[in-house]
Amino acid sequence: MAADFTEETAAKAVVDSFTDTRDPRLRQILTSLVEHLHGFVRDVEPSMQEWEQAIGFLTATGQMCSDTRQEFILLSDVLGVSMLVETLNDRKPEAVTDSTVLGPFHVVTSPRREFGDSIDEVGDGQPCVVTGRVVSVDGTPLPGAGVDVWQADAHGFYDVQRPDVTPVGNLRGLFTTDDGGAFEFRTVMPRHYPIPTDGPVGQLLTRTSRHPYRPAHIHFIAEAAGHHPVTTHVFVAGGEYLDTDAVFAVKQSLVRDFVEVDDPQQARRYGVTAPFRHVQFDIVLAPTGA
Amino acid sequence: MAADFTEETAAKAVVDSFTDTRDPRLRQILTSLVEHLHGFVRDVEPSMQEWEQAIGFLTATGQMCSDTRQEFILLSDVLGVSMLVETLNDRKPEAVTDSTVLGPFHVVTSPRREFGDSIDEVGDGQPCVVTGRVVSVDGTPLPGAGVDVWQADAHGFYDVQRPDVTPVGNLRGLFTTDDGGAFEFRTVMPRHYPIPTDGPVGQLLTRTSRHPYRPAHIHFIAEAAGHHPVTTHVFVAGGEYLDTDAVFAVKQSLVRDFVEVDDPQQARRYGVTAPFRHVQFDIVLAPTGA
Repeated sequence: MAADFTEETAAKAVVDSFTDTRDPRLRQILTSLVEHLHGFVRDVEPSMQEWEQAIGFLTATGQMCSDTRQEFILLSDVLGVSMLVETLNDRKPEAVTDSTVLGPFHVVTSPRREFGDSIDEVGDGQPCVVTGRVVSVDGTPLPGAGVDVWQADAHGFYDVQRPDVTPVGNLRGLFTTDDGGAFEFRTVMPRHYPIPTDGPVGQLLTRTSRHPYRPAHIHFIAEAAGHHPVTTHVFVAGGEYLDTDAVFAVKQSLVRDFVEVDDPQQARRYGVTAPFRHVQFDIVLAPTGA
Repeated sequence: MAADFTEETAAKAVVDSFTDTRDPRLRQILTSLVEHLHGFVRDVEPSMQEWEQAIGFLTATGQMCSDTRQEFILLSDVLGVSMLVETLNDRKPEAVTDSTVLGPFHVVTSPRREFGDSIDEVGDGQPCVVTGRVVSVDGTPLPGAGVDVWQADAHGFYDVQRPDVTPVGNLRGLFTTDDGGAFEFRTVMPRHYPIPTDGPVGQLLTRTSRHPYRPAHIHFIAEAAGHHPVTTHVFVAGGEYLDTDAVFAVKQSLVRDFVEVDDPQQARRYGVTAPFRHVQFDIVLAPTGA
């Protein structure tokens, strides 16, 4: 009969149970997971009650998830894991646009929209124009690139959080760059907002005296043929919580001035009324061959 | 503005975010969790797709849980975490009965039963008599001790797994020891069984070529005034899978002969028909003062 499982032999016994795993990558991940997870358990020596609380927390986190709510991504976000994974996957030439977290609200497909369209279907908030270009690392414009954008509204909510107030698809858009690699859309200024606090992750933040706020930003996923896609945000310079983002996602290279414009001619050009805010956000992608 | 989050600074940035946590134990646990979790992520460098798969796995695990199914305990079990936590909480005098995992089926309250009662409400299986005493580490019998027992049936299922076939409460019982510290009950022989394989944990076992079986056993929780309770099993000597329990819960000290008895007089004494099996399982508890 096999020897008893002890504090000293536990991790090895579990790692050995994965010996016959066919996929070497899965075996590698599980081996590392068991070693680190057992290291954590040996380090903190949880009581049975603490173990039960952990099981209860993870269960509640899973059960909070729905088609429009992803509490495990939120947990990954507030523990800095999402941002760490992004950072590890983002080793690239200096000039390429930094990535940041996907976040838990990329849960519906953005409606296709045309160059210059508004993504605002409600008309509540300060008008804002976003312009930019998607280019390769050598500056070559990338026509036909996909630019998927989504953002919180002037009250700090995404469409799916208040489907009774805002139609799903509001403040979301899937654009294609023009012949010069440019994109352009009208929207409202995004507001800083709390991540959802009515679930287990919110309780964790409360119990650790952490605030739940994210600084104001617009999400982007840009993808073009022959290039690595990038998942990122543009942050509003001067906004609150830039230094203490609840999900650790701010990168200095992604902060832009949203310039106040009070020129009727420019307003007419973009199809808005003055005064409005304008941000230029160019996105640089790395070729896959490099 | 704060410096960017990097591979090197990530764990520290997250640990620092927990600085204002009031409960020092919670802060200690979260600090260790972040260090080990980030260590794991840095070690395996998951792709974004692998991170998404992990989020999906954890979400599905939570959503598999119900009043009668605890998939996160099952996950903790197959990763050896439950057994490690038990082992860490089980440092005690040599003579005290070893503990083992609670398992995911202690999900309903066992019906109160009297000394000598049968816990078998179905009558399907080989008759078995379980006798034992709950004593303190110095051998003093412990009258009035609680003995909570539950087990799989002759087909390897717990009551809650087939509520259409077996009434909930079948093969469960909550006993109280008599004046001599003894307990006694009739049952059927437990069978080895697979842990539930129709959820994410079952998929994990399949993908790692691990079998899902647990050797035959009866669960016990014994508790007495002035003593540390013990959560344990008695395993059937000679049974299959004793060496490769899917949840790593076998301890050699917990394996007992379930002796075949073909004596009508003994059968009459216990209220069963010969032949039957008999196991004696004494449980030794540690005083809380020690």
